[in-house]
Amino acid sequence: MKPCPWVLLTVFALLAGQQAHADESAAATYRQILIDAESDTRHESVEITPHSAGISADSAWSVVKKSLHGGRQQGVELITIDNGEIQIVIIPTRGLSVLEVRRGDMRLGWNSPVKEVVHPNSINLASRGGLGWLEGFNEFIVRCGLEYAGHPGRDVFIDNTGGEAEMDLSLHGRIGNIPASQVEVLVDRDPPHRIRVRGSVHERQFYGPKLQLVAEVSTIPGSTEFQITDEVINHGADAQEFEMIYHSNYGRPLLEAGATVHLPAKTVTPMNARAAEGINDYATYLAPTAGYSEQVYLIEPYANDQQETIALLQSANGEYGTSIRWSVSELPLFTLWKNTAPEVAGYVTGLEPGTNFPFNRMVERQAGRLQKIPPNESRRFSLSYALHGTASEVQDVRRAIDAIQGSRQPRLVGEPPEIK
Amino acid sequence: MKPCPWVLLTVFALLAGQQAHADESAAATYRQILIDAESDTRHESVEITPHSAGISADSAWSVVKKSLHGGRQQGVELITIDNGEIQIVIIPTRGLSVLEVRRGDMRLGWNSPVKEVVHPNSINLASRGGLGWLEGFNEFIVRCGLEYAGHPGRDVFIDNTGGEAEMDLSLHGRIGNIPASQVEVLVDRDPPHRIRVRGSVHERQFYGPKLQLVAEVSTIPGSTEFQITDEVINHGADAQEFEMIYHSNYGRPLLEAGATVHLPAKTVTPMNARAAEGINDYATYLAPTAGYSEQVYLIEPYANDQQETIALLQSANGEYGTSIRWSVSELPLFTLWKNTAPEVAGYVTGLEPGTNFPFNRMVERQAGRLQKIPPNESRRFSLSYALHGTASEVQDVRRAIDAIQGSRQPRLVGEPPEIK
Amino acid sequence: MKPCPWVLLTVFALLAGQQAHADESAAATYRQILIDAESDTRHESVEITPHSAGISADSAWSVVKKSLHGGRQQGVELITIDNGEIQIVIIPTRGLSVLEVRRGDMRLGWNSPVKEVVHPNSINLASRGGLGWLEGFNEFIVRCGLEYAGHPGRDVFIDNTGGEAEMDLSLHGRIGNIPASQVEVLVDRDPPHRIRVRGSVHERQFYGPKLQLVAEVSTIPGSTEFQITDEVINHGADAQEFEMIYHSNYGRPLLEAGATVHLPAKTVTPMNARAAEGINDYATYLAPTAGYSEQVYLIEPYANDQQETIALLQSANGEYGTSIRWSVSELPLFTLWKNTAPEVAGYVTGLEPGTNFPFNRMVERQAGRLQKIPPNESRRFSLSYALHGTASEVQDVRRAIDAIQGSRQPRLVGEPPEIK
Repeated sequence: MKPCPWVLLTVFALLAGQQAHADESAAATYRQILIDAESDTRHESVEITPHSAGISADSAWSVVKKSLHGGRQQGVELITIDNGEIQIVIIPTRGLSVLEVRRGDMRLGWNSPVKEVVHPNSINLASRGGLGWLEGFNEFIVRCGLEYAGHPGRDVFIDNTGGEAEMDLSLHGRIGNIPASQVEVLVDRDPPHRIRVRGSVHERQFYGPKLQLVAEVSTIPGSTEFQITDEVINHGADAQEFEMIYHSNYGRPLLEAGATVHLPAKTVTPMNARAAEGINDYATYLAPTAGYSEQVYLIEPYANDQQETIALLQSANGEYGTSIRWSVSELPLFTLWKNTAPEVAGYVTGLEPGTNFPFNRMVERQAGRLQKIPPNESRRFSLSYALHGTASEVQDVRRAIDAIQGSRQPRLVGEPPEIK
Repeated sequence: MKPCPWVLLTVFALLAGQQAHADESAAATYRQILIDAESDTRHESVEITPHSAGISADSAWSVVKKSLHGGRQQGVELITIDNGEIQIVIIPTRGLSVLEVRRGDMRLGWNSPVKEVVHPNSINLASRGGLGWLEGFNEFIVRCGLEYAGHPGRDVFIDNTGGEAEMDLSLHGRIGNIPASQVEVLVDRDPPHRIRVRGSVHERQFYGPKLQLVAEVSTIPGSTEFQITDEVINHGADAQEFEMIYHSNYGRPLLEAGATVHLPAKTVTPMNARAAEGINDYATYLAPTAGYSEQVYLIEPYANDQQETIALLQSANGEYGTSIRWSVSELPLFTLWKNTAPEVAGYVTGLEPGTNFPFNRMVERQAGRLQKIPPNESRRFSLSYALHGTASEVQDVRRAIDAIQGSRQPRLVGEPPEIK
Repeated sequence: MKPCPWVLLTVFALLAGQQAHADESAAATYRQILIDAESDTRHESVEITPHSAGISADSAWSVVKKSLHGGRQQGVELITIDNGEIQIVIIPTRGLSVLEVRRGDMRLGWNSPVKEVVHPNSINLASRGGLGWLEGFNEFIVRCGLEYAGHPGRDVFIDNTGGEAEMDLSLHGRIGNIPASQVEVLVDRDPPHRIRVRGSVHERQFYGPKLQLVAEVSTIPGSTEFQITDEVINHGADAQEFEMIYHSNYGRPLLEAGATVHLPAKTVTPMNARAAEGINDYATYLAPTAGYSEQVYLIEPYANDQQETIALLQSANGEYGTSIRWSVSELPLFTLWKNTAPEVAGYVTGLEPGTNFPFNRMVERQAGRLQKIPPNESRRFSLSYALHGTASEVQDVRRAIDAIQGSRQPRLVGEPPEIK
């Protein structure tokens, strides 16, 4: 099967994103540090433009950093990349999560009942039986991990005495609630002038994980796409278990009654009995529904020969949509979270490429899905998010998905997996 | 039974306080925002006077905001209303609790061993078996609630999967340890120029409560009274359990050996065996007493025809006192907390109108005392606090209480309630 | 046995340190407050020199305060005493712990995987089964205590109802994660111009401990020694259990393969089976070792007639070292923590004079090692830390240790203590 030109372009873009890391000489790249704990640097507010960066530009773009005040968001910082076409809002204080992406009336993100961008110091992740993470959950993209992701609950670990001890894991781990230690803006001086916000978030402690997330969000001026290019490094002396889920969340206007989700799927498995009820309609969304409880589907995606796959969320009329492209060699599994609850409770769906499914880590370990990073090694994760503003663009993505699926039918599993 | 004029006046005052909400046109009301997370506003320090507000005044008044520094109070804010006669100190960073009220040498409040106004980010409410709240407890009035109040311990709730899960409730809930998201000062341009500090504190999370407390403290220039006029709104899609206790705490000079507490009571029940020991002396206070353990009494108050009731704390010689007036239709129950411990441990009594008693929420639910707010509905709570500086004023309040009690004797229950 | 002159000098220095407290008249002592919660004082950055203090000086010295930014250290403050010969870095935000001491290339401290000076508000001490303390652990000297120190786990306490309740103790207690409420710089106007950074850290809550740590780090210009002179005051109404361990941690360059530790010891007991394996080599250090688990030894030190004892860590070639001198009447026990793990995991040893051993408080109570402070009383702890830059200086300390040990051989216990 011959990949369509669009997929080839995607591969090129992902490779280009990775390539750029090697080519950041002072001459080639504008660089501005926004936060750096090591050198004790933090700028309260910053605005970078082509003019201030000394870069010629056909179109206007900017990177602006500001601090929030009031309530539980006191001291939180936001960085907004405006590439002239879309605005990407990044939260360094919350693990470099992406709060939202806007393009005119279109918005990637959702209306959480959590209205503020809550400072991690204000959250006890262990509260409500390990669900404290939900006190700050309102991002478009929040990484779940790194030592663990998924459902809360008891798991074992090796404590300071070298013996096995028990700890309570909290929902979706800690990385989304750790302030970035270093954040910088990088802009290629040469066309197409890719703009990067890159930073480091450390999940490290004595007698514990020593994981560094180097997180990057980048885009090209005038584009309706942006890329996430992350690296997770194990600085510890031993192999380190880790999990990573890109919890990407969509509400209005993309999510609506009759909206649909598409990806090339080998199997679709309900996470629990509640999800099993809706297995045949897993790809279609309801209007906000009173009394709705979440439905979660565990999906093994198919990929093309380059190991790439695509997930698409499209509007009911098919005239607009949004997609995520990624490599199943990096993120082999996909979780679909449907929460078409009433608007005030949070009308939202999550498209979640991950290294694993969101069961408690103990379950993932037993199922053989839990990975380790050897000492001094790292894992890279690259995802490309795009906005599609016309029916034609949406159909292009559908065709790319269909091309990967081919004639293979997804197997819909009727029962949730048995958990010991 | 004919209500005395004082009670009529009280009714008028409470109604007037409620009325004012409807009448805040720009012309009628001076308005100054101090904190607003939504518009990202926070003024480090503010001083409002009749002159700065452009309001004519017979007597001087002011509203001043400042920030605290050092120790565990770093970043905490205080707002002081000085109505020319009394000074009311409000803590927006701690759920708009009232730290103290002063009138010359007289002080409503107490000398807690906690000396700083502790920032909520510095407190783990779950610590010490759910007693972390006590690390910051030094306020005159602290609201307990909203999702739960009372004693810590395990209770059930519905988690994100729609199933029943368990969580550990912490003492007296969270509302007193959440920074206000919005705070404003409102002053009536027309006499009697009521001064209001009003703000919003949100107890909200995804898959959890969506409760908003709109808290207001107000007073009239030159008055020795102030009003609390609160509203709790359920923004969730479902009916929401809630609890609210106005934990109002008094130490020196009002609390002393021979000081007494008075309110029209139907029943007085000891909370535990320790309280049962002192049931016959429940209304009288000891001097600071070594080895004293708290005694807590659960009281069903009587009210007048307008559903109003009054609690009075008076000095041993009866020459001064302080009272709380409220409606039993809003707050049907009253908890009396006696803690005549040594001064250094906290010599204090709590007069606590509430929607319920301070048992763990599970107990309150089983006892049928736990209330719910339907979606998009709210509950209002109005309390009027007064200082009484002469024996004559104290006697007036006593007469009002006696008029409500009438010939009905309070029933003193000998045994604490049986808890399953 | 006649004490050697060096020990006499030590006694004098300790006494002098204590003496000075009584002699701080304005005339005799320069005083500058850096932080004071009570008066709401906090200077963002301060620099004090002989010139600014109006003190004549033969050698340059300074005390500098600054604030840290970025990551989890946002808002943390550091105070550096430079006595012209050594630089002592103190962390008021973290209980006045000592981050490191530097003298040219020599450094007292270690390379923890925790690189930032983590703000206590960013740490949940209860996380990881009570091991949250390890998220911030990178200090040279961190006090463990005050209500409890040692291993995490369940213990009993008396709660607000006067009844026995259970709480989970967290590793090494809270005092190292509480910001100082008051910090001042004191400099003697008369020679030898001792420079003191002194402050108060409160571990206090309602229905809980009311312990005040008055912590002092001091040094004399040009000296290679510094003193810790602490006082723990019980402000509560009842006798208060407490624990105090001076967790003093050393990595490169002092710790290396073949480095040795010396102190006059009556008994050396392994804390667990893992430590028992290495009992015969307890005094010698390995190079960084893959797969190493900590070994902890519980030591009863011998002391001289003045109740003083000395612990020495010396380099493999014996040409440099560092020592701690203290009184066993204040700190009767000593814990040796060996953690010669790979560099990236934290290659470190802890020399830890304490009131007790680092078992869970429940164990210490049962073993009769848990002390109480009566109400309104206090305990003092004085330790003198020295750097030894020549083989001759190291030998002087070895002779002093040998003089205390005399002909008494330390008893090496083969088995860890039995814990009920």
